[in-house]
Amino acid sequence: MSTFVVVGGDAAGMSAASKAKREAPDLDVVVFERGEWVSYGACGLPYYIKGEIQSLDDLVSVTPEEFREERDIDLRTGHEVTTIDPDERTVTAEGDEGTVVQPYDHLLLATGAEPVTPPIEGLEREGVFTLGSMSDGKDLREYVGRARSDERLQQPDSGPACQFLETCSGPVGIVGGGYIGVEMAEALAANGFEVHLFQRGDRILKGFSEATSRTVLEHVADQGVAVYLGGEVAELAGGERVEAIVTDAERVPVDMVLVGTGVRPRTALAEAADIELGETGAIATDRFRETNLPDVYAAGDCAEAEHVVTGEPAYIPLALTANRHGRAVGQTIAGEPTEGGAIAGTAAVKAFEMEAARTGVLDHEQARAAGFDPLTETIEAKSRAGYYPESGTVQVTLTIDQSTGRVLGGSLVSEYGEGAVHRSHALVGAVTEGVGVDELANYDLAYAPPFNTTWDPVLTAAKVVGGKR
Amino acid sequence: MSTFVVVGGDAAGMSAASKAKREAPDLDVVVFERGEWVSYGACGLPYYIKGEIQSLDDLVSVTPEEFREERDIDLRTGHEVTTIDPDERTVTAEGDEGTVVQPYDHLLLATGAEPVTPPIEGLEREGVFTLGSMSDGKDLREYVGRARSDERLQQPDSGPACQFLETCSGPVGIVGGGYIGVEMAEALAANGFEVHLFQRGDRILKGFSEATSRTVLEHVADQGVAVYLGGEVAELAGGERVEAIVTDAERVPVDMVLVGTGVRPRTALAEAADIELGETGAIATDRFRETNLPDVYAAGDCAEAEHVVTGEPAYIPLALTANRHGRAVGQTIAGEPTEGGAIAGTAAVKAFEMEAARTGVLDHEQARAAGFDPLTETIEAKSRAGYYPESGTVQVTLTIDQSTGRVLGGSLVSEYGEGAVHRSHALVGAVTEGVGVDELANYDLAYAPPFNTTWDPVLTAAKVVGGKR
Repeated sequence: MSTFVVVGGDAAGMSAASKAKREAPDLDVVVFERGEWVSYGACGLPYYIKGEIQSLDDLVSVTPEEFREERDIDLRTGHEVTTIDPDERTVTAEGDEGTVVQPYDHLLLATGAEPVTPPIEGLEREGVFTLGSMSDGKDLREYVGRARSDERLQQPDSGPACQFLETCSGPVGIVGGGYIGVEMAEALAANGFEVHLFQRGDRILKGFSEATSRTVLEHVADQGVAVYLGGEVAELAGGERVEAIVTDAERVPVDMVLVGTGVRPRTALAEAADIELGETGAIATDRFRETNLPDVYAAGDCAEAEHVVTGEPAYIPLALTANRHGRAVGQTIAGEPTEGGAIAGTAAVKAFEMEAARTGVLDHEQARAAGFDPLTETIEAKSRAGYYPESGTVQVTLTIDQSTGRVLGGSLVSEYGEGAVHRSHALVGAVTEGVGVDELANYDLAYAPPFNTTWDPVLTAAKVVGGKR
Repeated sequence: MSTFVVVGGDAAGMSAASKAKREAPDLDVVVFERGEWVSYGACGLPYYIKGEIQSLDDLVSVTPEEFREERDIDLRTGHEVTTIDPDERTVTAEGDEGTVVQPYDHLLLATGAEPVTPPIEGLEREGVFTLGSMSDGKDLREYVGRARSDERLQQPDSGPACQFLETCSGPVGIVGGGYIGVEMAEALAANGFEVHLFQRGDRILKGFSEATSRTVLEHVADQGVAVYLGGEVAELAGGERVEAIVTDAERVPVDMVLVGTGVRPRTALAEAADIELGETGAIATDRFRETNLPDVYAAGDCAEAEHVVTGEPAYIPLALTANRHGRAVGQTIAGEPTEGGAIAGTAAVKAFEMEAARTGVLDHEQARAAGFDPLTETIEAKSRAGYYPESGTVQVTLTIDQSTGRVLGGSLVSEYGEGAVHRSHALVGAVTEGVGVDELANYDLAYAPPFNTTWDPVLTAAKVVGGKR
């Protein structure tokens, strides 16, 4: 009987464990998870904090009991794996009941990522949060709940984001204008907080096109969020508790700060076992997610993956990749070698009443480094037939390679419900298959007046950028 | 100076005229249109009749005056082209001011399609409509307006579709359960009519998957439309005015009948000039839309086009194809030979509070005729993260070739707003590029909780049908 050991019980780990056990029921599958939660939808935390989801349990797709009882997986929560011994083929874990030494035939590292915090003073003060785990989510929700029941909520208020409620709390600060920053701005503003968002660079959502970033920024500002671009946060000032965000230029009083400045792969365990990291700093693997150590795999937020456009390893930790690559590892270990596929860096975000998505390579420097000659155009088009009563606007940015016409990347934004995100599905295929922009412009996409103009905005963008070559 | 003559002033014709003139301003561009309307969105007529669009003029994207004055196109409305003389390179048109003989260097036939009516008695009775033109739309809207202001509307009512209004009119009948039938059922029911829909075959929307058809059928019936499947309409009975729809099995009293049983290409003019038709009965062309006569092109609803899956000519008259192929002809004639691209038969429809789309080849007989070994599976999945408050259901049908795994076609349906139509964009690319189902399952599609589950329903469908090979 063969044993498959998994380190880390979230998306990649539990997908691998479930798939392996389903395909090879004789396999012993052991999962070590250092926390109490497994297989949870961390992407849902902002909506839990916002109050749209009532219980943390709702974010759990499969409970530990279900994994144990229905899927026959030996899931050991509260167990932190401290070492891997590749020669002996064992892992050592520390749990409540002491040390466990577990032999493996195959091993998957699915240790995930952890929030990166910038080198600023005052991160240790009370009232400073990150959002990387379920317990972070719980803490933030409790903060929101306390603040809302606080007496300040009974008083009339002047905060910019307070159109949502009769009264307002805060002010609160967010450091970082990526997905987490933007989603949390929505979550906090919807709860009546006066929100101050600090972004180091010159735009928010920097993985998206500049046009998308600008459109979302304007909307977020319209919703009452005070956005500070280009202001490097120097300090989270205060006493025991945070009291202000301090930059070169200003000092903004806040009652709470969320730091959402990205994540890095958790690789300490792998490094200690001489598992190679790639240039991105995440664990390097082949297309089957196998590391340099035989029968040791890595998948999800701790690992690199090949990019469909550049063909190079990239570190873009997102939920679908973790699920897909975890599942592929499970299938491989069950006896059917399976590549999990490359990544396009596709991402989506809701920001108040807008939605945006991006895929592929948009950044010109990155495109040139991969040997392309990038050209970018942005168009705006109606989201539905012009005469259709509910029509909105979709803005589409396309980046192509001028010499070949190949579609390298795209970024879309629209009002929420006007289809920017699902329309990006058309571009993922184009980016993945290396489709030329003129061919994309000829795609026979679905049309009916309630859903788009005769030429979907994606096609219009392809026509326009194709015409500029 | 070269002259480009266009016969027919709707999507294909005006796209060609506009593109040719824009790219080659020295070109003389003459368009003959027998009616008064040009470049109109016939797809919007059901929403005009429903009352969501207030004026027929709203459906016109560019007016005749704009074409003449801003685009410098010699547009002659009210002119019917009666003959083509390919040897002399002239067309003859009849207008209010008599006969015009117009020489051409290049000619485009964009004569469109006309409604096909089944061989049933009583089609000539008053109160029997088709919906093929702007004037048909006008007539139907007038009928709806009259009926709604009629004294019957003042009376309490018992019709099944009357939950929408306090009072109800009708009953009315629809013959044909395709797009037009379904969209008009919505338009009429929303105006308080008791709607009876007759479909000859065993399902509505027969170009979609059986699962999609069934889901839409159930919804349409839930909305109060009485649907009669399998009942061949024998007669539209009555005196001067239609009074009842008669089938083998029943006689349903109606005050009005809309016949929406498909269209056929308008080819009489082409045939008289010995322009070849294809096996489908529409005008045959090469990939540049050129017919067997040199410098004579055909595009839009009167012409065939190559199907991306079968590689064979197909007749699938839809708005985007007309626009795309018209534009390509304009570009070709302006000096840059341009293929307009093949068609995937992609179509979308809104049916009350549901939306559906289809693309590629779903029919097993058609797939086998093209040399494939088809396999079809249907899945249902949440439209958004399970924990997200607004979630609905997306049903996805995929048809693949079992031997190669190639994706042949797809059909999707969801609640309106839950993204079935825009999600179909992912499948159009797959069908067009000949992507395998396992590769599709690995697509890095956008994910965030407000927009889908981690695996978008499209990916789930690919996993499921891929697993059945």
